[in-house]
Amino acid sequence: MLSKAKIKLIQSLDAKKNRQAEGLFVAEGPKVVGDLLPHFSCILLIATNKWLQDHPQEKADEIIEVTEDELRKASFLKTPQQVLALFRLPLPAVPSTTGEELMLALDDVQDPGNLGTIIRIADWFGIRQIICSKGCTDTFSPKVIQATMGGIARVQVIYVELEEWLQSLPEGTPVYGTFLEGDNIYSTPLQQRGVIVMGNEGNGISTAVERIVTQRLFIPSYPQGCETSESLNVAIATAITCAEFRRRRY
Amino acid sequence: MLSKAKIKLIQSLDAKKNRQAEGLFVAEGPKVVGDLLPHFSCILLIATNKWLQDHPQEKADEIIEVTEDELRKASFLKTPQQVLALFRLPLPAVPSTTGEELMLALDDVQDPGNLGTIIRIADWFGIRQIICSKGCTDTFSPKVIQATMGGIARVQVIYVELEEWLQSLPEGTPVYGTFLEGDNIYSTPLQQRGVIVMGNEGNGISTAVERIVTQRLFIPSYPQGCETSESLNVAIATAITCAEFRRRRY
Repeated sequence: MLSKAKIKLIQSLDAKKNRQAEGLFVAEGPKVVGDLLPHFSCILLIATNKWLQDHPQEKADEIIEVTEDELRKASFLKTPQQVLALFRLPLPAVPSTTGEELMLALDDVQDPGNLGTIIRIADWFGIRQIICSKGCTDTFSPKVIQATMGGIARVQVIYVELEEWLQSLPEGTPVYGTFLEGDNIYSTPLQQRGVIVMGNEGNGISTAVERIVTQRLFIPSYPQGCETSESLNVAIATAITCAEFRRRRY
Repeated sequence: MLSKAKIKLIQSLDAKKNRQAEGLFVAEGPKVVGDLLPHFSCILLIATNKWLQDHPQEKADEIIEVTEDELRKASFLKTPQQVLALFRLPLPAVPSTTGEELMLALDDVQDPGNLGTIIRIADWFGIRQIICSKGCTDTFSPKVIQATMGGIARVQVIYVELEEWLQSLPEGTPVYGTFLEGDNIYSTPLQQRGVIVMGNEGNGISTAVERIVTQRLFIPSYPQGCETSESLNVAIATAITCAEFRRRRY
């Protein structure tokens, strides 16, 4: 039996200020919850009888069996998926400053679906840290967490003063940025280290950050010079860019 | 002044059955409406004074100047954007059966955001027709139209019995499909013609369609063999696949 107080707590975690006050975030569905359980501390697991029977080994401070109807009252999804968990927010990770790994930096990416999808892409392409400007949307909102499809278990997302952090990297660290004009990404030498900066949905990369970019890249449309969309969605551009970096290794 | 009847009509167009009964669909915002006006017949344009002053040349059967508050009542967006238009649904296009162009086929893609993003990707990469199975979400819902960012003006989306249409293509037409196992897309010869099939969000490509695929492809994760997301979002996989096809031309 799920109390009204618990439903109210869960629903309150849609707001960042409540997540921070409680130190908690929500994840839902067998795939996402299953990926997160080994990596985050779970204080409450609410699940249908079916899920509990299929997952007898899973541990949490408190486990409550619920009906589909009860789950619906707590869920953020249109179609609730068997299980919902409350996890403790992790401690903030420390951003790498060696410039030796390939990392992503996001300059005011504001759509939760885009951020979640970018985390999933980073996970796929073996990028372990995403450095976010303070203007980016919060990682632990229900929408972002669901869009990561569990990727948040394996990718650290760290909020910093982006300009400052970029400037703290060792001299010679490549800082790639994608723009609507630049060098064709397919014919530009790409290192497997440094930072790939992606910009805001409407405005792209800010002027201050643009100044730190050492290699401007663009993804050519096809055929070149024809009427087309003026741009790609930021998550789509991130995917094509990361794929092109990693392709060079195959 | 926007009548209650018009607000009700606009809002009703969220449902496919109403779009089909009225023969109309909705588009919003300067970018999307601006891209669609030269391509679709506009029966009603409602816009703020600012937009109308900036676009004195735009034509529609009826133009109504509205306040931001009135626009909010009609809009499907959280933040309405100056202009909303009702367009006539186009007549269904005829799917190409020559196998000479590069086309996309979608097998039950159900999320409106994914379909809209895929249309935007097709537009960017010069793919002029997307062939959808009957189980795909409808193209003309407000969410899909907004996610295309105007791409729907330049890309035809056609609903067919997918298996039947694929079988009607000339012998020797390459039918590419992306799977979690197959040939590494980066080292497989790719023709600039034929069909790229993308599958449903949860279940991938259906067994019936899989049988018609002539070249199984996969997008390798990095580093290979490590723990990662089990899959990429379908729009992301579409983007990486289309980019790789077109890269071969640069």
